[in-house]
Amino acid sequence: MMIDLYTWTTPNGYKVSVMLEEVALAYEVHPINIGESQQFTPEFVAICPNSKIPAIVDGDTSVFESGAILIYLAEKTGQLLPTNGHERAKVLEWLMFQMANIGPMLGQANHFVNTAEEKIPYAIDRYLTESARLMKVVDDQLGRTEYLAGDYSIADVASYPWLKLAFDAIKNAKPDVLGNVEHLPRWLEQVGERSAVKTGMQIPKP
Amino acid sequence: MMIDLYTWTTPNGYKVSVMLEEVALAYEVHPINIGESQQFTPEFVAICPNSKIPAIVDGDTSVFESGAILIYLAEKTGQLLPTNGHERAKVLEWLMFQMANIGPMLGQANHFVNTAEEKIPYAIDRYLTESARLMKVVDDQLGRTEYLAGDYSIADVASYPWLKLAFDAIKNAKPDVLGNVEHLPRWLEQVGERSAVKTGMQIPKP
Repeated sequence: MMIDLYTWTTPNGYKVSVMLEEVALAYEVHPINIGESQQFTPEFVAICPNSKIPAIVDGDTSVFESGAILIYLAEKTGQLLPTNGHERAKVLEWLMFQMANIGPMLGQANHFVNTAEEKIPYAIDRYLTESARLMKVVDDQLGRTEYLAGDYSIADVASYPWLKLAFDAIKNAKPDVLGNVEHLPRWLEQVGERSAVKTGMQIPKP
Repeated sequence: MMIDLYTWTTPNGYKVSVMLEEVALAYEVHPINIGESQQFTPEFVAICPNSKIPAIVDGDTSVFESGAILIYLAEKTGQLLPTNGHERAKVLEWLMFQMANIGPMLGQANHFVNTAEEKIPYAIDRYLTESARLMKVVDDQLGRTEYLAGDYSIADVASYPWLKLAFDAIKNAKPDVLGNVEHLPRWLEQVGERSAVKTGMQIPKP
């Protein structure tokens, strides 16, 4: 049975298309064009009451929130999330670190730097400073372990789309924000070379 | 063996003390006074490289990020998180909704309304509007189900401290932000009456 994937061309969307490619489940893509407010249709809100992509439907179970979808797919297939102990705890903590920090804070930085018409120095500085701090936390961790939580896992799947887009944007526009990042480029290259990642990062076609 | 809990008097901290009370595990509280920057000591950073409370140490496993700790404790005890299927997916999605939305966005609202010396109308409006929208998503869900994900679960444990503090603050200062909230007060009362919640919300003593 095919999984239905409701997604768009955003970091949270890419997490799930990369994951579906990694675990090799069959899926059908339903683009939800957020530029055209398609996330507010009654059909989509019935699946995701928060009106945010991505969401999936798998038989009679629907799941919204990218982090919940990654855990669901990892447990369904027995891949990319250890079943117990210290190793599982490490994956869950770095997954949550992405969901509660990297995503929301880099998202706010993007809003105040790129989207907001009013340029507010206080807010721009607040979120660029926090984004740089978070990227240093990741960088330090990648100096200790090959992937975020040891072996390649859903913590990396969740973090890659956000960190790849942010790194590329910042590298050119504000290289000083990256400070003394040492290990992140190595990890971005390593994860980016995976064929599931290459394919998943192109879904949906814009 | 006792679990070591590193925490402070914040919504993210309360989640874990409530959870430890709910599942009745023995634990020792180590207050990390963030007003005195104790989250930056080398001892704490070794447990949580992101320098944020809460964190736990359970034998040779440490866990940071409140959402990861809730899953860890639920799985350790077999409580408040169904083991599979649709029911598990619902708990994980509402837990992630709290981690990625309620926490970060209500946190930003609190910053711009209460903490920031500069009062920036654009930012205050942005985060109050989003907080009100998120509380309406919760309210609508509580019109469909008794607790956030059906039965009482870690999704409620994660959401209660944030929604309780926000609701009480907004009710007095900006009642219009709450708009037509209908079901949230019923849930706040129901969850707040649990003895584990009453006890956990007082830990650590300030």
